[in-house]
Amino acid sequence: MRCCHRRYMRERFSLVARCPQTSARAGLLHTAHGDVPTPVFLPVASQGTVKALAPDDLRALGARMLLANAYHLYLRPGPQAIEQAGGLRRFMAWDGPILTDSGGFQVFSLARLSRVSDEGVRFRSHIDGSEHIWTPESALELQGRLGVDVMMPLDECPPYGDEAKIAHATLRTELWAERTLRAHVAGTQLLFGIAQGGTNTGLRAAATRAISRMGFDGVAFGGLSIGEPKKLTWEMVRLSAAETPVSVPRYLMGVGAPEDLVDGIACGVDVFDCALPTRVARNGSLFTPEGRVNIRNAAYRLAVGPLDPACDCYACRTFSAAYLHHLFRAGELLFYRLATLHNLRFVLRLVERARSAVIDGSFAGFRRDFLERYRTSDEEMRTGQKKLWLQAQERARAMGPESSPEG
Amino acid sequence: MRCCHRRYMRERFSLVARCPQTSARAGLLHTAHGDVPTPVFLPVASQGTVKALAPDDLRALGARMLLANAYHLYLRPGPQAIEQAGGLRRFMAWDGPILTDSGGFQVFSLARLSRVSDEGVRFRSHIDGSEHIWTPESALELQGRLGVDVMMPLDECPPYGDEAKIAHATLRTELWAERTLRAHVAGTQLLFGIAQGGTNTGLRAAATRAISRMGFDGVAFGGLSIGEPKKLTWEMVRLSAAETPVSVPRYLMGVGAPEDLVDGIACGVDVFDCALPTRVARNGSLFTPEGRVNIRNAAYRLAVGPLDPACDCYACRTFSAAYLHHLFRAGELLFYRLATLHNLRFVLRLVERARSAVIDGSFAGFRRDFLERYRTSDEEMRTGQKKLWLQAQERARAMGPESSPEG
Repeated sequence: MRCCHRRYMRERFSLVARCPQTSARAGLLHTAHGDVPTPVFLPVASQGTVKALAPDDLRALGARMLLANAYHLYLRPGPQAIEQAGGLRRFMAWDGPILTDSGGFQVFSLARLSRVSDEGVRFRSHIDGSEHIWTPESALELQGRLGVDVMMPLDECPPYGDEAKIAHATLRTELWAERTLRAHVAGTQLLFGIAQGGTNTGLRAAATRAISRMGFDGVAFGGLSIGEPKKLTWEMVRLSAAETPVSVPRYLMGVGAPEDLVDGIACGVDVFDCALPTRVARNGSLFTPEGRVNIRNAAYRLAVGPLDPACDCYACRTFSAAYLHHLFRAGELLFYRLATLHNLRFVLRLVERARSAVIDGSFAGFRRDFLERYRTSDEEMRTGQKKLWLQAQERARAMGPESSPEG
Repeated sequence: MRCCHRRYMRERFSLVARCPQTSARAGLLHTAHGDVPTPVFLPVASQGTVKALAPDDLRALGARMLLANAYHLYLRPGPQAIEQAGGLRRFMAWDGPILTDSGGFQVFSLARLSRVSDEGVRFRSHIDGSEHIWTPESALELQGRLGVDVMMPLDECPPYGDEAKIAHATLRTELWAERTLRAHVAGTQLLFGIAQGGTNTGLRAAATRAISRMGFDGVAFGGLSIGEPKKLTWEMVRLSAAETPVSVPRYLMGVGAPEDLVDGIACGVDVFDCALPTRVARNGSLFTPEGRVNIRNAAYRLAVGPLDPACDCYACRTFSAAYLHHLFRAGELLFYRLATLHNLRFVLRLVERARSAVIDGSFAGFRRDFLERYRTSDEEMRTGQKKLWLQAQERARAMGPESSPEG
């Protein structure tokens, strides 16, 4: 087995505590640039910046690790500019660890695809239409050049529901995972594997088992939260966690609504990333302990108190909800920063509190209390929104050049 | 003379030093919320926010006093929301002093004007087309409700070149100034007067003399830098300064290009405001000791050093010019904040250094050195740009609802 070839100078993941009632766990992910307490939520910095925030904002929020996107950075500014700066961390002045998604998801959703074969993928840039060829080996090499702490293999992320495509993509993703591992020189840069499998129980279980056995530094559950009913998402996450060894960090890609973070942690997930908290913030949708509210609402016009009195973010400590309402309605740039600070602080604090609860044995109660109070958007509205977003991505892809996508 | 009615508990302005070679001076403007060292540049917060910046950014930049716009705030969020928050300073969480322009300039440039008479002005909101009537008294009362430190009377700002209109507007502005003074209850809120007069030497001198004699807490030179040749601007500023008593602070409205700040200070101006540093920043045009550069330029793609090694702003201390270039090309929100921080720090520091130079007697040399090194955009390009901007405002006005203007 390949895992025999992959010996480490030190552990890449330590378990700190486990919840007696759920599958939740607290751990430490050991990276070249510091230990990351898990569960952890990674703010999304697709193009080398968390939209509207600077690195000192992120530190003040308690962000421990960021996600960047190799596809976006490959196209712009290109690996040369980043290498010349001394790597992505230096380029964006972030001193903590970074995980890059290879950009498989973006190649298959945002770029105009020319051809996919077992060899690799040929696509046209969504920015300028230029043609590029990626292989599992080149995607790994690119992330090596970016100098990030955790790299992800090129994968094929099929759309929800197309069973034939899913089966094919799942196997190709395994093939590519093998090739990526073979090309990887074990060193300070960790490499996670990605399991696909759609919402097919057998396929998902087999894929997760296969990826888990290859000996990656972590296992990612890919191709979820892309439009399928939530019930199926959690079924897949639970069985994936069961197929992944306890000693390996588990990463649920693209999940980050507050209620989903709490549920994901209960399923034994250690790492999350998602553009949702920052994307909905820019649309005026802000998290509170009672659920999402829209700051555009006239009820906030004269609201002299903070949006969320329990929140310790800069926006809530400094401004009234009425001021945020005014900034949003006036189309002021400061709104984007304040709203992003608030929503990110909300999810980062939520995950911090979940971790503490796991450690002191109170996670099950913590989860119950949170979910009882937090009113979630109903499923229909949620999947409707996701569909709209995927359609917008589709349109952006069709339109080609210029757009500033996140995620 | 009216000034006899206006006695103060304390000085509103103290002179600290005067330049022996030029008319430059250093002083202190005493406001209810602190002493403001002059010369001073006021960042523009038209809608109750300096675009893309938070109050802690402004403090870190060394901003001492802000300008807000009563016209914009009257329309949105409206005086009720601001009063309820405890005044504009509380609303926007800025603990320093604020000066509001009454918004005469915006009523005459941005709103759709219905009727102007000696009584007042009737206009339609550029946001929703609603009709409003303002008088000198109501404009003062509004600023009283906003709770700002320095208020400006309603004035009529005629376009450059229309001699008949200018003569008329100049006299009406004097009439309105008289009425504003009569309505003003001397207290902690200072009141400056505005002199118009276009570029007609006789008219400008007479208007400035008349306003200076009325006993305002300061005299503003209005209706300049609105498209006239720069030579005429400075001719008007020099004669205005000569018509204003030495003991009265002088405010040159709407001027803030680096070279103009240095020249304005040399003419004896104490207070400046201008949206230019922040507006051009958002277009990628950044100040350096050698002049304005555009960060979009391909030369910055691999520039690993800071944009301006001599600059102490957060952007220059933290990021390479290549990163700023990347953010700008990728359309990232963080760019707007960093560029605004940089340009504002540049002008604030320039004015700080000019003040120190006045105090230690080296201002003439400081000015010569700065202007020798700083390559200004040539006059034609400048007035062309200004014309484009005024045309854009005209268009925005014609289009009516929704736009996010600055200045």
